[in-house]
Amino acid sequence: MESKQLDSEIIQKNEAAFSEQERHGFYKTLFNRRDVRGQFLPKQIPDDVLSRILYAAHHAPSVGFMQPWNFMVIRSPEIKQKVQQDFALAHQEAELMFEEEKRDTYKSLKLEGILESPINICITCDRERTGPTVIGRTHMKEMDLYSSVCAVQNFWLAARAEGLGVGWVSILHHQTLRETLKLPANVVPIAYLCLGYVSKFFKKPEPETANWLPRTPLEELVSFDSWGSDEHGDDPLIAQIKKDKNFPRAF
Amino acid sequence: MESKQLDSEIIQKNEAAFSEQERHGFYKTLFNRRDVRGQFLPKQIPDDVLSRILYAAHHAPSVGFMQPWNFMVIRSPEIKQKVQQDFALAHQEAELMFEEEKRDTYKSLKLEGILESPINICITCDRERTGPTVIGRTHMKEMDLYSSVCAVQNFWLAARAEGLGVGWVSILHHQTLRETLKLPANVVPIAYLCLGYVSKFFKKPEPETANWLPRTPLEELVSFDSWGSDEHGDDPLIAQIKKDKNFPRAF
Repeated sequence: MESKQLDSEIIQKNEAAFSEQERHGFYKTLFNRRDVRGQFLPKQIPDDVLSRILYAAHHAPSVGFMQPWNFMVIRSPEIKQKVQQDFALAHQEAELMFEEEKRDTYKSLKLEGILESPINICITCDRERTGPTVIGRTHMKEMDLYSSVCAVQNFWLAARAEGLGVGWVSILHHQTLRETLKLPANVVPIAYLCLGYVSKFFKKPEPETANWLPRTPLEELVSFDSWGSDEHGDDPLIAQIKKDKNFPRAF
Repeated sequence: MESKQLDSEIIQKNEAAFSEQERHGFYKTLFNRRDVRGQFLPKQIPDDVLSRILYAAHHAPSVGFMQPWNFMVIRSPEIKQKVQQDFALAHQEAELMFEEEKRDTYKSLKLEGILESPINICITCDRERTGPTVIGRTHMKEMDLYSSVCAVQNFWLAARAEGLGVGWVSILHHQTLRETLKLPANVVPIAYLCLGYVSKFFKKPEPETANWLPRTPLEELVSFDSWGSDEHGDDPLIAQIKKDKNFPRAF
């Protein structure tokens, strides 16, 4: 491909660089994104806002430019009700999987806003898109699923930049969801999302605020050249990471 | 969790909203992100830049706040060489999977920058992190993998905002990669990434520029309430999407 490149295909140097302000806008979006469950408002989402968010999702990376995603916009109260009923069933089943001392906390959590959010979106992955052989998917067959997940994350971030909240509902039965949404056999539901304006955004993820789990210090998750970071605690990058520990809170 | 919330846990209204400029910075990052293969420069990546990018990845959403990711920073020429050798082998195998008329094009593509990029990063998923039962992962077991993919996408976007390119190398043998990086049985490699400054960024994804595949018009990927959009072509959202078709190019 290199040989065919034209000047018109390259981003000019002054446009390729980011200003401090532009970077700030990006990081502000990223660090203020939350999984929203209980704060949805019934306010309508304008089509131009939703259109921009969908363009963001559609510009995710995809293996071999496969673009395996579809975006199902769910506004029907009947469909939402069906999905919510399946959630309620799965949630009851889930409760029993937790040890007794965590069960009460689990039951008290608000874990979805299917009916309260004005729009639900299902992002899917068509496993057969663009044919049987895909560049980059010859050895790792799951790459198409991962591409659709990248679209989910782009969607989520763009929604936040537009002032909207997103909640990812995963306490659902795959097969029931497929049937409710009438998905063909080659299409996998990746994420069932609730989208809407919100009454407020929390500073931290709810499980962190509720002391369900703490945020892991980043330096404990970084290793060098192979698994296990124990021997590399004195690497300058680790020192830098410790120094930057308040960086995400600056936005 | 609702009942426990304090004012200090909520983002103040004036901070929660995004200005036009901040939103611009976000969308500029998102639409200018590219999969980089052939344009890496040997220039060193400062630790403070890499630290910020890693914080962005660590602030991805994760199911039940599981944070299942680890970040392996690979600087060792020996490890990079081993991974590159495995790529070369897999690439040869892949070539034969394409039909003859596409094979020459496939062979001409530059698909990785493992040795040219100063740093490689492997983002993994620990499938056992935080114990056997995870909120939101009781019914969809793949949610932890998807969380790590969200971390990959955050990493990629943050790198772009910092002026760096990322390439995701997926033409590798899972088992060889596990062995090279000495991953324990419960840890899955999600993405093997090349990271570095670049000589240039392309305006469009390379497969699009090279006419390998076109960008699918977004309106063809949107449906309402169930699979298949044929009956809903006159929805105002579809009209809006068509009107906005140049939105991604405005950045």
